[in-house]
Amino acid sequence: MAENRNKDITSRDVDFALWYTDVITKADLVDYTNVKGSMIIRPYGYAIWENIVSILDKKIKATGHVNVQMPMFIPESLFNIEKDHVKGFAPEVAWVTHGGSEKLDERMLVRPTSEVLFCEHYKKIIKSYRDLPILYNQWCTIVRWEKTTRPFLRTREILWQEGHTMHATSEEARTETQKMLKVYENLQKNYMAIPTLVGRKTDKEKFAGAEETYACENVMYDGVALQNGTSHYFGNGFAKAFDIKYLDKENNLVTPYQTSWGLSTRTIGAIIMVHGDDFGLVLPPKIAPIKVILIPINNDDKVLTETNKLKALLDQNDISNTIDNSDKTPGFKFANAEVKGYPIRIEIGPRDLDNNEVTLVRRDTLEKATVKLDLLISKVKQLLEDIQSNLYNEALKRRDKMIYQVSTYEEMKAASKNKGLIYTSWCGDATCENKIKEELGLSSRCIPLDDIPSGKCVYCGKEAKHHIYFGKQY
Amino acid sequence: MAENRNKDITSRDVDFALWYTDVITKADLVDYTNVKGSMIIRPYGYAIWENIVSILDKKIKATGHVNVQMPMFIPESLFNIEKDHVKGFAPEVAWVTHGGSEKLDERMLVRPTSEVLFCEHYKKIIKSYRDLPILYNQWCTIVRWEKTTRPFLRTREILWQEGHTMHATSEEARTETQKMLKVYENLQKNYMAIPTLVGRKTDKEKFAGAEETYACENVMYDGVALQNGTSHYFGNGFAKAFDIKYLDKENNLVTPYQTSWGLSTRTIGAIIMVHGDDFGLVLPPKIAPIKVILIPINNDDKVLTETNKLKALLDQNDISNTIDNSDKTPGFKFANAEVKGYPIRIEIGPRDLDNNEVTLVRRDTLEKATVKLDLLISKVKQLLEDIQSNLYNEALKRRDKMIYQVSTYEEMKAASKNKGLIYTSWCGDATCENKIKEELGLSSRCIPLDDIPSGKCVYCGKEAKHHIYFGKQY
Repeated sequence: MAENRNKDITSRDVDFALWYTDVITKADLVDYTNVKGSMIIRPYGYAIWENIVSILDKKIKATGHVNVQMPMFIPESLFNIEKDHVKGFAPEVAWVTHGGSEKLDERMLVRPTSEVLFCEHYKKIIKSYRDLPILYNQWCTIVRWEKTTRPFLRTREILWQEGHTMHATSEEARTETQKMLKVYENLQKNYMAIPTLVGRKTDKEKFAGAEETYACENVMYDGVALQNGTSHYFGNGFAKAFDIKYLDKENNLVTPYQTSWGLSTRTIGAIIMVHGDDFGLVLPPKIAPIKVILIPINNDDKVLTETNKLKALLDQNDISNTIDNSDKTPGFKFANAEVKGYPIRIEIGPRDLDNNEVTLVRRDTLEKATVKLDLLISKVKQLLEDIQSNLYNEALKRRDKMIYQVSTYEEMKAASKNKGLIYTSWCGDATCENKIKEELGLSSRCIPLDDIPSGKCVYCGKEAKHHIYFGKQY
Repeated sequence: MAENRNKDITSRDVDFALWYTDVITKADLVDYTNVKGSMIIRPYGYAIWENIVSILDKKIKATGHVNVQMPMFIPESLFNIEKDHVKGFAPEVAWVTHGGSEKLDERMLVRPTSEVLFCEHYKKIIKSYRDLPILYNQWCTIVRWEKTTRPFLRTREILWQEGHTMHATSEEARTETQKMLKVYENLQKNYMAIPTLVGRKTDKEKFAGAEETYACENVMYDGVALQNGTSHYFGNGFAKAFDIKYLDKENNLVTPYQTSWGLSTRTIGAIIMVHGDDFGLVLPPKIAPIKVILIPINNDDKVLTETNKLKALLDQNDISNTIDNSDKTPGFKFANAEVKGYPIRIEIGPRDLDNNEVTLVRRDTLEKATVKLDLLISKVKQLLEDIQSNLYNEALKRRDKMIYQVSTYEEMKAASKNKGLIYTSWCGDATCENKIKEELGLSSRCIPLDDIPSGKCVYCGKEAKHHIYFGKQY
C-alpha cells in the first residue's frame, strides 16, 4: 500500500474515536462551535447531505409521498397527549419559556420528532376513507438535548426526514412500515455501499409510543453497531389518543393506523466509519459531491491547458470534478485528495502528457494506473463503478467477519471480547436481555425479519422465540 | 368573464384580508394549528416552496456560493456581541432556558438570523487573503416571536435562505450586495411574474447592524407594499466586533467586509397577492408545481382512455400534470382547478373527442379554446409561455397605475387616500420620514438605485437628497 502522507491522522486501529475526529475535521466536513452540543456542517459535509437528500427525496416521492412542513415548536399540553411518547422523550427536550421579554403562558418544546404535530393535523383533515392513505414526509431539523457530542452521531440538532402516514387498515400500515425500511436498506446498499442488517427492535429498544420498531443496523469498522434509519408501526395508539376517526365505506366511524420512519445526518457518520481509512475519508462515488480531482503537477502551460481540457471533458460527461490549482506542492495536493476521499484523482504531468497519458489513482485501493487520454472518460466511468462495488464488497466481507454465532452464554462471553456483533437465540424475555446488557455491556440490536426460531435462549436456556443480534452501539 | 363557481371566496375588492385567508385555506396551501404563531405548510403549498428553492438554489450556486448548516441556537453572550443587532432583534426572539429538566447555565435563543454564528465561524477559518472571498449560504428555519400571524407574511417560524459572505475589500462586498439583489429581482420578474422596485432602505428601515440595506419591494393587488428579499452591506462592523482579521498580500493584518442577503416563504404570499383573483389562486407556470390539470367530464371508456393517453403525452414532454379522477361533478372539478390556480385546465369530453378535440382553459384570463389533439402539446407549451408573460404584463400595468408621483405635501395627503405607493422627493432627514409615518401612516419603502435627486423635500421643503417611495406595508 502507498505511504500515508497524512501523518497527523490517528490510525483507526490505535484509537478509532480519535481517528474519527481527525477525519471529520481534516476533511473539512464539520467544525466545532461554542454552541454546546451543536456542530457546523461545512460546505463539503453539507454537499454530501445534499446528495443524500436528493436521492432519498426522489425515492420517497416515487413511493407516493409528498412533503409538508409542520411547526418546530410543540406546546407542552399537546406533547403530553400520548403517555409512552412523553416518557421516552421528556428527559431530552429543549424548552422555550420566553418570547422576547415575556414569559409564555404555556412553555413549548422544540420538536424532538413530530408525531403529535402530525396527529393534530390529521384529526382535522381525515374525515372519510377517501382521505386515506395519507402519505406525508418532512425534511427538517429536530432537537434532542444530548449530554455528549459526536458530530453526525450524537448532536443536539439533527437534520433528518420524518415520514408520517395514516392508513385505513393495520395491514396497509404494516406494509408501509416494511416498504420504507426497504427504501433505507436500498439507499445504504446501492448508494452508500453499506451492508445493512434489517430487523425488528425488542420492546425494550423500540421507539417511545410505537407498537413495533424496525431498524437498519450498520456495523462500523470498529465492530460497533450504528442504528441508521428506523421505521415504526404505531397501530392505532396515537390515533386513539388524538381521537382521529374516519367514516369507512360502510359508514362506520373507525380509527386509522399509523407509521413513521426517519433517516438523519447520522448516516454520514456511517459512511465515514464504514469506508474511511488511515489516509482519511473514502466516499462511495454515488454519494461523493466531487467524483474526480484533477491535479496538475506543475505550472507548465501544456500541463495547465491539458488540465482545463480534461475538466471540460469531465463536465461534458456530467462527472463532477474540481481542479486543485492552489500553490501547494503535488505531495500536499495528493494528501489533501486522500483526506477528502475523492473517488478518483487524476495526476497530470509533463512526462505522462508526452505519451498522451495521465495517471489515475483510485481512492479505495490507492492503486495507480496510467491511461491514454482518448480512453480517459470510459476508464473513469468504469473505475467509478468498480470503486462503488468494491467498497460494498469489502465492507460486506469485513462485517461478516465480525458477526459471531454463539449458542451458549460461555461462548457469548468469549465472543464479547471481539469487535463486532453476536448472533444467537433468545427466549424473548426482557429479563435475559437486561442481564446481558448488565453483564456484558451488549444491547440487543435487532431480530432478523425472516426469523425462524430454533435452539435455546443463550441466557436462561429456555425455548428460544427469536434469533437476535447483540452488540455495542453508538 | 366566466361565472365564479367559488362562491365561498370573499371578493378581493370587498375584503382583501379575508380574500387572502379564503384563498390560502381553500387552495390547501396552509392549515392553522394550535401552535400559536405557526402554520402548517400543506403539500401543495410546500411544493411551491420546493420549486422556488430549486430555482433559487441553482442561481445561488451559479454565482459561486456553497451551502452550509450552522447551529439553530445562539448563546446569549454570542448574540450580545454586536450592539445594534441585539437592540433590533432582542424583543422578538424565543428563549430556550431548559434542557430536559435542567436549567441551562446560559440561556440560548433560537436564531432569528445567523450573522453572529457565521462571524464566530469566520473568525476561525479566515486567516489569509487566500481564504477570501467566503461565499456561504444556508437554507433553514428562523424564528421571530411575532404577536400576529398571517400565513407566509408574518409567522413566528420562517423558512428562508440566508447568504453570508466575507470579502477582502469593501468594493467587492458592495458588488456582492448588488449582485444578490439582482438575483432576487430576476427570480421575481422572470419566474414569479412579479414586477419589483429595487432600492435602498433608509437608515430608519435598514437591518439591525447593517450599514446599508437594499430590498425588493413588491406592490400587492390592494396597493400595499411587501418587502420581499433583502441584501445587506455590513461594512466591517460585525468583523470588528468579532475581531475577524486576515493577512493581506503585503502581510498586514486587516479586517474583511461582509454582506448578508435573504429571501423567505413570504415570497409565496407575494405570488398569491399579486396574481390571485376572486376565483382563487393564480400561479405563474414557472412556479406552479402542477402546470396542467386534466378533467375527464364523464366516465366513458373513451374519455378515460384518452385522458390517460394525454397524461402520458404530457409526462413525455416534461409538463407536470395531474388527472382529477375524483367522483365529483365536472362543475366541482372546474371550481377546484380554479381555486388551485393550475395554469391550464384541459376538459376531455365525448363530443370534443368525436372531433378529435379537447377544450383548454387558461387560468389567468379563463378564456376557453378547443384544440385538435395532434396540436395539443405545442398549444400547451405556447399557452404556458403566454400565461407567464401575460401575468407579468398585467401585474406591471396594475402596479404602475398604483404609483402616484407627488411634489407637495398636499398632493401627498390626497394621494395617500388611494391604494398604492407614492413617489416623491425627500431631504434625507429622519424627522420628515417620521412625521410622514405619524401623520399619514406611510413608511418609506426604498430609494431607487439609479436616483438623481431633484426638487424639494415633500415634507419640509428643503433641498431634496433622494427620490423615495412611501407606502403602507405588510
